[in-house]
Amino acid sequence: MNANPQFLAATAQVDDAAVKPLPNSRKIYVEGSRADIRVPMREITQGDTRTATGVEKNPPIYVYDTSGPYTDPDVKIDIRSGLAPLRAAWIEERGDTEVLAGPTSEYGQGRLADPKLAELRFNLKRAPRRAKAGANVTQMHYARRGIVTPEMEYIAIRENQRRKEYLEGLRAGGPTGEKLARLIGRQHPGQSFGANIPDEITPEFVRDEVARGRAIIPANINHPETEPMIIGRNFLVKINANIGNSAVSSGIGEEVEKMTWSIRWGGDTVMDLSTGKHIHETREWIVRNSPVPIGTVPIYQALEKVDGKAEELTWEIFRDTLIEQAEQGVDYFTIHAGIRLAHIPLTANRMTGIVSRGGSIMAKWCLAHHKESFLYTHFEDICEIMKAYDVAFSLGDGLRPGSIWDANDEAQLAELRTLGELTQVAWKHDVQVMIEGPGHVPMQLIKENMDIQLKDCHEAPFYTLGPLTTDIAPGYDHITSAIGAAQIGWYGTAMLCYVTPKEHLGLPNKKDVKDGIMAYKIAAHAADLAKGHPGAQIRDNALSKARFEFRWEDQFNLGFDPDTAKDFHDETLPKDSMKTAHFCSMCGPHFCSMKITQDVRDFAAEQGIAADEAALAKGMEQKSIEFVKKGAEVYHKA
Amino acid sequence: MNANPQFLAATAQVDDAAVKPLPNSRKIYVEGSRADIRVPMREITQGDTRTATGVEKNPPIYVYDTSGPYTDPDVKIDIRSGLAPLRAAWIEERGDTEVLAGPTSEYGQGRLADPKLAELRFNLKRAPRRAKAGANVTQMHYARRGIVTPEMEYIAIRENQRRKEYLEGLRAGGPTGEKLARLIGRQHPGQSFGANIPDEITPEFVRDEVARGRAIIPANINHPETEPMIIGRNFLVKINANIGNSAVSSGIGEEVEKMTWSIRWGGDTVMDLSTGKHIHETREWIVRNSPVPIGTVPIYQALEKVDGKAEELTWEIFRDTLIEQAEQGVDYFTIHAGIRLAHIPLTANRMTGIVSRGGSIMAKWCLAHHKESFLYTHFEDICEIMKAYDVAFSLGDGLRPGSIWDANDEAQLAELRTLGELTQVAWKHDVQVMIEGPGHVPMQLIKENMDIQLKDCHEAPFYTLGPLTTDIAPGYDHITSAIGAAQIGWYGTAMLCYVTPKEHLGLPNKKDVKDGIMAYKIAAHAADLAKGHPGAQIRDNALSKARFEFRWEDQFNLGFDPDTAKDFHDETLPKDSMKTAHFCSMCGPHFCSMKITQDVRDFAAEQGIAADEAALAKGMEQKSIEFVKKGAEVYHKA
Repeated sequence: MNANPQFLAATAQVDDAAVKPLPNSRKIYVEGSRADIRVPMREITQGDTRTATGVEKNPPIYVYDTSGPYTDPDVKIDIRSGLAPLRAAWIEERGDTEVLAGPTSEYGQGRLADPKLAELRFNLKRAPRRAKAGANVTQMHYARRGIVTPEMEYIAIRENQRRKEYLEGLRAGGPTGEKLARLIGRQHPGQSFGANIPDEITPEFVRDEVARGRAIIPANINHPETEPMIIGRNFLVKINANIGNSAVSSGIGEEVEKMTWSIRWGGDTVMDLSTGKHIHETREWIVRNSPVPIGTVPIYQALEKVDGKAEELTWEIFRDTLIEQAEQGVDYFTIHAGIRLAHIPLTANRMTGIVSRGGSIMAKWCLAHHKESFLYTHFEDICEIMKAYDVAFSLGDGLRPGSIWDANDEAQLAELRTLGELTQVAWKHDVQVMIEGPGHVPMQLIKENMDIQLKDCHEAPFYTLGPLTTDIAPGYDHITSAIGAAQIGWYGTAMLCYVTPKEHLGLPNKKDVKDGIMAYKIAAHAADLAKGHPGAQIRDNALSKARFEFRWEDQFNLGFDPDTAKDFHDETLPKDSMKTAHFCSMCGPHFCSMKITQDVRDFAAEQGIAADEAALAKGMEQKSIEFVKKGAEVYHKA
Repeated sequence: MNANPQFLAATAQVDDAAVKPLPNSRKIYVEGSRADIRVPMREITQGDTRTATGVEKNPPIYVYDTSGPYTDPDVKIDIRSGLAPLRAAWIEERGDTEVLAGPTSEYGQGRLADPKLAELRFNLKRAPRRAKAGANVTQMHYARRGIVTPEMEYIAIRENQRRKEYLEGLRAGGPTGEKLARLIGRQHPGQSFGANIPDEITPEFVRDEVARGRAIIPANINHPETEPMIIGRNFLVKINANIGNSAVSSGIGEEVEKMTWSIRWGGDTVMDLSTGKHIHETREWIVRNSPVPIGTVPIYQALEKVDGKAEELTWEIFRDTLIEQAEQGVDYFTIHAGIRLAHIPLTANRMTGIVSRGGSIMAKWCLAHHKESFLYTHFEDICEIMKAYDVAFSLGDGLRPGSIWDANDEAQLAELRTLGELTQVAWKHDVQVMIEGPGHVPMQLIKENMDIQLKDCHEAPFYTLGPLTTDIAPGYDHITSAIGAAQIGWYGTAMLCYVTPKEHLGLPNKKDVKDGIMAYKIAAHAADLAKGHPGAQIRDNALSKARFEFRWEDQFNLGFDPDTAKDFHDETLPKDSMKTAHFCSMCGPHFCSMKITQDVRDFAAEQGIAADEAALAKGMEQKSIEFVKKGAEVYHKA
């Protein structure tokens, strides 16, 4: 149980891989209405297009950037000090919070006082904040009072990704620019199944969606390091990466590295699911160094506090855990309050029973005490804690199906209805809520899940694990589940919780984390395209243009994973000269469809026959003679 | 251009990895109405379930087996002799073919006579066959005359996978067996979008589907080594693996290894897309050693014969190539006969023009000759060749979209309509047809593709490449496309052509081939589940049961890739004792939801309260006292 081999606070270092610049990319900041609203984006520079008549510029494109200050070469990263608290002034100036003398949880105080933990402990130099007595500091509370917070404005800028300015900039570039804007800006109409995504996200739209409960901004006042982001079906589909050690593996250093690795590749939030030793200290290191919201499942830690004996859990222990974690800055809590006593026997005839860890802990507690769980009976007390720190609920699906067999059964749906009731209770307190979803679901039953969730949970954002669309590919569940995730994202799920190739087999290492992130970036983006999210197709268009024009480096860099794309290309054509080659190893130099197409295009353009088939026959005849005379070479060397 | 490093016919050896037995698996043969109809299946043995009251047997399960004799330890594999011609007698006894003196194609004769090729050449000891003058030897022709061929009976047995016998066998096992049958045999109703899959596939059903053109059996009379299989929407969804070298990579030995590797992991057909040197010889080695149908794109080789100058292609060269390949035993030909002159300008305003190699070759030819292609004008002549050997058409989608931008455009749809017209011409000749499909398509446009294809092509089987649902993940296109493939398979596509991680970047190596196969086995199976294919859920149910019962080895072995699953598990828990552990590295020994569930189940069963919530409250109260007394241990050690 050497849970933290070699990790010492004094010598902790950032993972070199986390701070390596991404190729041809630059971090830019878009300023909002005030100087301290600086929204980061990744600008990807492109090479020029060389045509027969000259050189055309391809302006850089802007993409959503979750990687935080790690990819900004101007920021000095020292994980021992943590990230800068960019939201600190916003929180402070609202005047509704107070700085505490120190942690108010018994457990938090005990850990701080324990000299044995000194060598592991993150050296936080500030004290936690809490809402002043009677105050409610949730983004939902502000939203409902008509207040547009800096967080909301930040999110509006971030979600737009400079699309409008980008396309206007293209159009301003004369006829060539207009042509480029038509090419890069074109998008297929989406099928959004009732989502309602405006062309331009305004701060007011963000406020309105949060006020209605259709989106959440996970932003604990004790996590001022977060770059605000939003989870809701009328915004870009987000993805979550699960990390965390267990009693049999990994330590603090590795978990921080998994977090920085996740956000580098596009993780929008990170859940720390640690169950081993030093849960408290591991979490502190992660939160202090995370620019994305952090979620946890507090019952895991509560269970450790009673040595794994679920029946010994109490409301008091759980409450102290909530406060402990809220004061560290956790942005959302998975809470399995929807498991009611009457639901438990509904799982008796399942193939795989209760597969949620939190769900099974609470089921065990209910069995031992023959009563409703303290999560359910104390739900309003929990809301009081949530609103004092702005922690969002992620209402846990403790009865999610763990196999195709169990999909969409009454146990799952009964719990979902309870989650809908609890959503309304939380909303009464202006506490933000998202709803967790399955699990294992065959494709034909996925839409039903989404539709029932929207109805029963009043459009609170859905946050699903996959779903896995078959059980028979252990080792490949990032793929079995990306298939389901893309679909449920399309149908309306706001955030997709990744599944790694290690699912069902072991805890993910860094490679697995990246594989999971990639599969889910794909699923989320495929969903954005299918919903018709405005501008979602820009990056696809830019990459396809680069591909068609044999701009190899641009093709790599515009993709989700430039490193892997380049490595794969180089396996067969390693020389640098091949990065400008107008062919690839698939077909070889004399056999390229892309080369031939250019001729078709030139021919049609010259004849002006794109839409005029009558003219074509004549044009063809003239042109073919000329074509053969020129040597029938489709691609003319520059 | 050392296209064949080290390959010599005299020393060619089977890849050791191809003949390694799969864990806990045994090849069985199910006999049909005659002794020489012996249908292979893979039997996977399972461990026992240990319960509080004793030991319950888990009978072996049967899965579709594409691996051919390679995984039969009783068969001695020597790739220099090729596989046994299991269909030879069936072809012979039909009496409608004649053995030729030797290859009748000019090119085939030339290669045979060339002494320089001796060291590379497969030493085939038999001469090719052809239909007798006036005869038609296609499976469709037999089907339409009401003949159930041995191939059709073989396929019926193969598609059923012993499901009925398996479930009846379970039910015969007393109350425990009945319970097991209910558990393993249960399946969610499907949504088949008009597919009509019977509970039991009969030989007559196979015949009828082939006669109607809704399914094809690719089975060239010169490829008697094939184990018959069927491609149609009312059968299991199939997958194809593309292999083949290019001018810049790979050789004969490697391509044969890719073929054996593909079929080991589940490839139902293999396309040899070689474009480099020794295309003829490479193909011979592949066909002679392949138990699955082989497809090719003859225009690739024809182009090599004119040194890459598309405009110099002629009907005569193409015709000779068709005969050359038909006499080697190629089972289906991709032929891009749907590209008409008027379609070409429709591609002029595309983002990525014409991305199909065959399509671009024919477009170039049409431009140079200002007339319809010889594939179109000689289509009936091609049919005459196809029916003399029973080669099936795979009507190529030369204008498939190569980017999201180009999806579902008029170029693609115009060609599809022409393919529908050509389908009817081929059917007039009783020649089997499937239709190739895209490509790159965002999710919301996939169903439209399928619906138009069904209508315009009169339900001829659809065979799609992916589709890729986004362009921005080079290096991960097995995933971008598995998402689309699962959906289009669900909607009615009969065969999914895999995409490997190397797509757009390079030619796949063996690892990529396996990655592509795995992604597509998942997509095809997810589609079968969603369509409600009878019995499709048996393997999911068996694996989930094994998972719930901590039968680790069974969980690995019932999955698509036992090797990877075991390796992943062993990364964190390498010891053999951990293969029987009732926990896993995700949660550790004190934290397992599966363990807790068993108690819930036991409790509910004792109380008989599965459906009786009123009784529950009382039961809970009694039981909880007992439960705590027992030490509140959910899992009781054996």
